[in-house]
Amino acid sequence: MARRSHRLVQMSMSAMTLGPVALVGAGPGDPELLTLRAVRRLEAADVVLHDSLIPEEVLNMVPRRAQLINVGKRCGDVKDRGLQQQEIHDLMLTHSRRGCNVVRLKCGDPFIFGRGGEEVEFLAANHVPCEVVPGITSALGAAASCQVPLTHRGFNTNHLHLCVGQSKAKELADMDWAEMAKRAMQQTAVFYMGLKLLDKICTTLRENGAPAETPMMLVESATSPTETSLYSTLGEMPAEVKKQQFGSGGPVLIILGPTAAFPAHLERLANGEAAAKRRKVDQRSDVRHNKMAEACDA
Amino acid sequence: MARRSHRLVQMSMSAMTLGPVALVGAGPGDPELLTLRAVRRLEAADVVLHDSLIPEEVLNMVPRRAQLINVGKRCGDVKDRGLQQQEIHDLMLTHSRRGCNVVRLKCGDPFIFGRGGEEVEFLAANHVPCEVVPGITSALGAAASCQVPLTHRGFNTNHLHLCVGQSKAKELADMDWAEMAKRAMQQTAVFYMGLKLLDKICTTLRENGAPAETPMMLVESATSPTETSLYSTLGEMPAEVKKQQFGSGGPVLIILGPTAAFPAHLERLANGEAAAKRRKVDQRSDVRHNKMAEACDA
Repeated sequence: MARRSHRLVQMSMSAMTLGPVALVGAGPGDPELLTLRAVRRLEAADVVLHDSLIPEEVLNMVPRRAQLINVGKRCGDVKDRGLQQQEIHDLMLTHSRRGCNVVRLKCGDPFIFGRGGEEVEFLAANHVPCEVVPGITSALGAAASCQVPLTHRGFNTNHLHLCVGQSKAKELADMDWAEMAKRAMQQTAVFYMGLKLLDKICTTLRENGAPAETPMMLVESATSPTETSLYSTLGEMPAEVKKQQFGSGGPVLIILGPTAAFPAHLERLANGEAAAKRRKVDQRSDVRHNKMAEACDA
Repeated sequence: MARRSHRLVQMSMSAMTLGPVALVGAGPGDPELLTLRAVRRLEAADVVLHDSLIPEEVLNMVPRRAQLINVGKRCGDVKDRGLQQQEIHDLMLTHSRRGCNVVRLKCGDPFIFGRGGEEVEFLAANHVPCEVVPGITSALGAAASCQVPLTHRGFNTNHLHLCVGQSKAKELADMDWAEMAKRAMQQTAVFYMGLKLLDKICTTLRENGAPAETPMMLVESATSPTETSLYSTLGEMPAEVKKQQFGSGGPVLIILGPTAAFPAHLERLANGEAAAKRRKVDQRSDVRHNKMAEACDA
């Protein structure tokens, strides 16, 4: 079969007594960023197996009769602090075999650094009907709330690269750092789960030739009420993070590339050139921020 | 200011009479993939400036009293078939100056190949308060509906690369094709707007050393009722597209990399090894499909 069109994996008749499992992306944090389908699946759920960082307002969308099970994983956390992946699989199967409507509610999008593929594999092998409901991945959420376009023709960034900042072993992720460095000023790269290795990421990129002045920003708890962002450059971000004691525990995204200077560029557009030059800047990072925007405006 | 937390760009007092503009991502096609916030903004709109491919069901969410203006751009179309970008800018400003709640409703996500950055720049320069509401970009929508994880540890694909298949001049996009070819089996690459240049994309990648057997899939009109997909390999996809006369006019995504063989892999998991080997296959593309899945399973 070369052509396919399938929302629900078709299963054999013998599997029809199994309840369906929906892998649902809950988005980056803000409950209003759930999709209509995600809400519909929650409203019809008998059992919801959810990550730890799913906000209360989202869990309140689940009917009272349904069972909520916190399976303990934090968004994007590579180490399972709660149940192991196999235990999550077993819970999905147990409740499906009871004929329940199961929702596996995952932070962000199930198929971007979310181990959704592993869960779909397990369900397929056990003939459980499975649907995947996409979610706003945190890079998109952060970009929208900080007004940082991920691609922007005016900045010559027509590529978006999503990657992880650390591997399973909490080491630098296995990737082509030389190539990443070479393209630092020609794409937007978003690192998930990279704060702990920020120094190493920045050093490695610079050693491979990425310009120290490449704009870089960090966004913590994107789209949640506690969202905070920090703007600097590849060269100075590690020192800035220490100075500002940035990173209180929420998930942090690292955005690298010309568009990370977009908010300063917008300020300049709003204030006009002259105003921007007159404007008093009392924080060094903001001076850098403006320099970056000037470089990108050129 | 090094730390920021801004949903709405703060504007000077003189701008307070201008109506706000929300750049809203409508998602990939399926109306149920709108976010709750997108729906809320549509319900509160006085004027909606929308792309051509926005489905009727989505436009029906706009109250009758509001004005709907088709600004004629198709999702991801690099050539403006309707109004030029500047005309869209002018319309946003005109309606904002009338004090209206303006929604600029865009396919997918405003900040991924959507020229959202240009619209935000224009609004900032004109002191119009602006909010960006993220949307499910079509790569995420297609991945979920076809059950193709975009990252998957089991397939060693911990990177996602989103890019365009063609440049403004309808030429091959300006990017590092050698590097793309080198990483063909180690990442998922999604090309937006690439069908017309498919032959050239495949030839260029192969000339740069990408293996002919790299899994590749095409998805047309992802998440819409007419969604269709075609599974093959980098080497054989161009011939397959001709044979199947694939591409009836909806937007087509190209997904390249090991995870493009994931649906066949799921079938194998569901059917078991033996069943998979016994299964009669009468279409060559399906044979390839299974070979790919075997390679990736190994």
